[in-house]
Amino acid sequence: MSDLLGKINGPNDIKNIAAKDYDALAREIRRFLVQKISRTGGHLASNLGVVELTMAIHLCCSLPEDKIVWDVGHQCYTHKLLTGRKEGFDHLRQYGGISGFPKRAESACDAVDTGHSSTSISAALGLAKARDIRGETHKVFAVLGDGALSGGMAYEALNNAARLKSNFIIVLNDNQMSISKNVGGMSRYLGKIRTNTNYTGLKEDVEKVLQKMPRIGSALTSRIRGIKDVIKRVLIPGMLFEDMGITYIGPIDGHDVRQMVSAFESAAKSRRAVLVHVSTQKGKGYPPAQADPSAFHGVAPFHIKDGTERRQGDKALTYTEVFSRVMVESAGENEKITAISAAMPQGTGLSAFAMEYPGRFFDVGIAEEHAVTFAAGMAAGGLHPVVALYSTFLQRSYDQILHDVCLDSLPVTFAIDRAGLVGSDGETHQGIFDLSFLLHMPNMTVMAPKNTWEFEEMLKFSLSQDTPTAIRYPRGRAYQGLLEYREPIVQGKSEWLFQGEEIVLLAVGSMVETAVEVRGILEELGHSVSVVNVRFVKPLDKEMLQKAVEHHSVVVPIEEGVQSGGFGEAVKAWCQDQKGVRVCQVALPNQFIEHGSVDLLKKKYGLDAESIAEKVIQIVDCSH
Amino acid sequence: MSDLLGKINGPNDIKNIAAKDYDALAREIRRFLVQKISRTGGHLASNLGVVELTMAIHLCCSLPEDKIVWDVGHQCYTHKLLTGRKEGFDHLRQYGGISGFPKRAESACDAVDTGHSSTSISAALGLAKARDIRGETHKVFAVLGDGALSGGMAYEALNNAARLKSNFIIVLNDNQMSISKNVGGMSRYLGKIRTNTNYTGLKEDVEKVLQKMPRIGSALTSRIRGIKDVIKRVLIPGMLFEDMGITYIGPIDGHDVRQMVSAFESAAKSRRAVLVHVSTQKGKGYPPAQADPSAFHGVAPFHIKDGTERRQGDKALTYTEVFSRVMVESAGENEKITAISAAMPQGTGLSAFAMEYPGRFFDVGIAEEHAVTFAAGMAAGGLHPVVALYSTFLQRSYDQILHDVCLDSLPVTFAIDRAGLVGSDGETHQGIFDLSFLLHMPNMTVMAPKNTWEFEEMLKFSLSQDTPTAIRYPRGRAYQGLLEYREPIVQGKSEWLFQGEEIVLLAVGSMVETAVEVRGILEELGHSVSVVNVRFVKPLDKEMLQKAVEHHSVVVPIEEGVQSGGFGEAVKAWCQDQKGVRVCQVALPNQFIEHGSVDLLKKKYGLDAESIAEKVIQIVDCSH
Repeated sequence: MSDLLGKINGPNDIKNIAAKDYDALAREIRRFLVQKISRTGGHLASNLGVVELTMAIHLCCSLPEDKIVWDVGHQCYTHKLLTGRKEGFDHLRQYGGISGFPKRAESACDAVDTGHSSTSISAALGLAKARDIRGETHKVFAVLGDGALSGGMAYEALNNAARLKSNFIIVLNDNQMSISKNVGGMSRYLGKIRTNTNYTGLKEDVEKVLQKMPRIGSALTSRIRGIKDVIKRVLIPGMLFEDMGITYIGPIDGHDVRQMVSAFESAAKSRRAVLVHVSTQKGKGYPPAQADPSAFHGVAPFHIKDGTERRQGDKALTYTEVFSRVMVESAGENEKITAISAAMPQGTGLSAFAMEYPGRFFDVGIAEEHAVTFAAGMAAGGLHPVVALYSTFLQRSYDQILHDVCLDSLPVTFAIDRAGLVGSDGETHQGIFDLSFLLHMPNMTVMAPKNTWEFEEMLKFSLSQDTPTAIRYPRGRAYQGLLEYREPIVQGKSEWLFQGEEIVLLAVGSMVETAVEVRGILEELGHSVSVVNVRFVKPLDKEMLQKAVEHHSVVVPIEEGVQSGGFGEAVKAWCQDQKGVRVCQVALPNQFIEHGSVDLLKKKYGLDAESIAEKVIQIVDCSH
Repeated sequence: MSDLLGKINGPNDIKNIAAKDYDALAREIRRFLVQKISRTGGHLASNLGVVELTMAIHLCCSLPEDKIVWDVGHQCYTHKLLTGRKEGFDHLRQYGGISGFPKRAESACDAVDTGHSSTSISAALGLAKARDIRGETHKVFAVLGDGALSGGMAYEALNNAARLKSNFIIVLNDNQMSISKNVGGMSRYLGKIRTNTNYTGLKEDVEKVLQKMPRIGSALTSRIRGIKDVIKRVLIPGMLFEDMGITYIGPIDGHDVRQMVSAFESAAKSRRAVLVHVSTQKGKGYPPAQADPSAFHGVAPFHIKDGTERRQGDKALTYTEVFSRVMVESAGENEKITAISAAMPQGTGLSAFAMEYPGRFFDVGIAEEHAVTFAAGMAAGGLHPVVALYSTFLQRSYDQILHDVCLDSLPVTFAIDRAGLVGSDGETHQGIFDLSFLLHMPNMTVMAPKNTWEFEEMLKFSLSQDTPTAIRYPRGRAYQGLLEYREPIVQGKSEWLFQGEEIVLLAVGSMVETAVEVRGILEELGHSVSVVNVRFVKPLDKEMLQKAVEHHSVVVPIEEGVQSGGFGEAVKAWCQDQKGVRVCQVALPNQFIEHGSVDLLKKKYGLDAESIAEKVIQIVDCSH
């Protein structure tokens, strides 16, 4: 067996491979990827699909001068392989090892860090404009899947790219599916292009007919000339893009390196944005992945022989599974319940609901913003929608949650999966900001369950509310301990699990389990420790806090999220009011502020000089 | 003069007006709007444009059962007038008076509250689905301007609407401009539809020609039949929408009530989403507004005679004007500087920059997300882009700021105009959340200037940084006092303005002016007061805080933003560490967290039981 990969040890080394060996190289890369990922886990099907595509781009590029932006980024493995990171694959996605996503910190060949969907055209357009303004001439590529086209940002960027006369190449990697099934109008449109295989032949025939047309009045003739252009445009697939002002090339075979190289080279000569539509097959070359690409999107270590997981045996129950079951049960009892997913029905556990209640399930594609405002509309129309998203993706709809759901205080439930650390996907996927961006939203209630029983109760509680609620829960194994603690869920009330005297641990959701362990350690050392299951991160349970500071000298808020703007900071801020230096906070109340003149509003809400002075004096007087 | 408006005192009263009187009613409404808005100020041009459009929708509706969603919402005045809120116009946008935007709290005829752009199709689709699921049959309308179509959410919603077989009517109110000039591919496409006036004639001619075609081989004949369909589709304007699966009707005259009524009624019979493309003229019927609709988008009270503002005289300098000047000056010195606006070049003060440096100015349309990631791309490409947005619109790009700018710590400057209370636009436009959503973003620096001098210095400082920075400044008059305090801007350092002993006011940006007043009041009462100009809200100036708590008994953080997650809460949390009950916060550090197994990461960042116990013991030991 030849060792073509052995010749590739750094960027641009692929150019030393003879064209006749491209297929062999692609085979070697696939073998390498399957072997490595079978040990480390990682994104498999998408990476197997873009082997030739990546080779073709690299053949057209001089790296790191040319820039390649990988949308989402989980399909960058061949790119990493071709840029000298072969050795890194032994520790792919492991701490200290290479990331599963592009990272500027890892290689100069990674143009931007990515992780969320539909951002690549925007970033590539920015890189292209920077190049033009700096008088440089390198190439810029954006590579995105057809799924990413359902994200509105991609369209905003296409819309803008059409107008800015800058060359860059948008490679639309059409594998006829995003992570799950692709949905919506754009998908339908791409399907139409793909199935019209005889466009080229048709075009020739029509031109012949048009030439043979009988002579008629000159007015009509000139109109006909117009029609010829029209027909031409129609017969060229991609007219939707062309109509927007983006040059379209395709569809071409995404497993034919030479065909792609020639398309990219011709695209690079244009003076504007060119979209090259490439058809690829997810999972290509590895039969199990080819047969079920969804199952092989992101995988744990597996046996190469048949694709089965290495770690078999009893699978731990996950919160996602509990969510899946309770949603189906609740929907049976309450016909107002609907469910919305943004291209993740399986990941979020909504597939069962979709099967059982297809008319009340909506997969909107990778479109988190629309998902949330669509939910707001349904809630305004009298239903109770549940939006199930991963924490890191929920942050894409910050404005929609605040402006479209919270402003009207609508009954929408946010089921926030993968909240907290998610592990091997890294920076772009950790769910560590949701508490910080939700806690300052007026009208929002935020919960986190200690165990599976409580999650179920919280979800039911949430579905009974007529205001916005969010429940955050972690990825992976769900905690099934502490099942003897079953105080009913009451709005804004925490649960005291253990009563001690010196130290009180206030644990949020996933950290309750840990807090109980912490208590064990501390009690061993002779300390008396209380443990509170916080349950409601918003609103803060002030009665509980009062009791906590009255009976303990150390208060320990514990959460799986960043320090700033989260639970712990709110607890610290609250405790500050109890003793020591007095802080008199002057700010607007945590609510939406109605219209009126600014001066009037400042007076009403205590931001004018007189009100502030008055408030300060009260504090000073109390301190004396 | 007839008093048709006098007959309209509640929802559906318009149906009592005879069709022959529609034009007269429209004139009366316009007269009413011009008169009222000339006194109160408000949105003028857009409301004058949609008088007949609103009448036509109301003629087709039975309110409040039928639902109308107004995109952005500032064009809802005729709707308010036709739903019994005539009297309210004397106090339009004033405290306690009716809002300038739709409000559910104000009328059952306002289906959802709106204020931000491009949300209407999502909300209307939600309402339509809720109707279907509940077995109801009312109509649902979404009314949006052509400008709103540049927002990605609108596209996400169209994409989804195409797939869900629900009838609702999307009224595309095409006035050939958004607030400012419309931009991008979609605008180009709509233009093409509008100018092809002879589509219908053309279509007939072509069909004639096709019938006359010489007989040719049967294969070709059947192909030709396909072509006929294709041509038909081409000749029907709106094929872009049709291609996505949305039925298209238009373009029709948006000032012809009867034509619109007939279009809406035919649209309501469809089983799917129908887009009715309506052409209107902004400012219609009031010559000054018609001549310069941009200037009459949002207006202060004006003289009806010529449209000039009532309050003339010396206009106070605004931060927007300072921004405008400094941007032009800085760009002259530093060729890396570019500027990005989201459809607000005038509002944000970037018009001068656009004139002077057209190649470095980008108006991306109403597309805040793309604006930010486009900036990230430019920054990654070696430039220093400045994104100028209003605070309330910046929140639309929360994820893009966090994920695309902060993650790579790219040199992007965010110029946050209209931060703090904005007044008469109300809930949807107050800029009161920016501190809370920016302060927990890793790598971000957040500043606020006390006066015009400092704003200029901060902007220059920001442009010299190679990390993300944000400067927030309020709407309206810029403060020009305290000009004698000119300590140079140093990263993370506050400025002590007055040194006292008992009370220390820590004032953020717009509140420094007020803090000086507060000091006056308190000193009069015999208190000794320090004033600190915070300057950097992030990072917190801990040296300053140390000095503040050492020398004062009361610390007063003052900011124009909500309590939670902002400056004051951070100060309180910091002060908590100083004295009293000890709070030992356990949370992740304020940074992005790399990949690795969750267990390993929890250990590394102190979220495992051992680390927490250790941290608690340290605190306990210190407390003893």
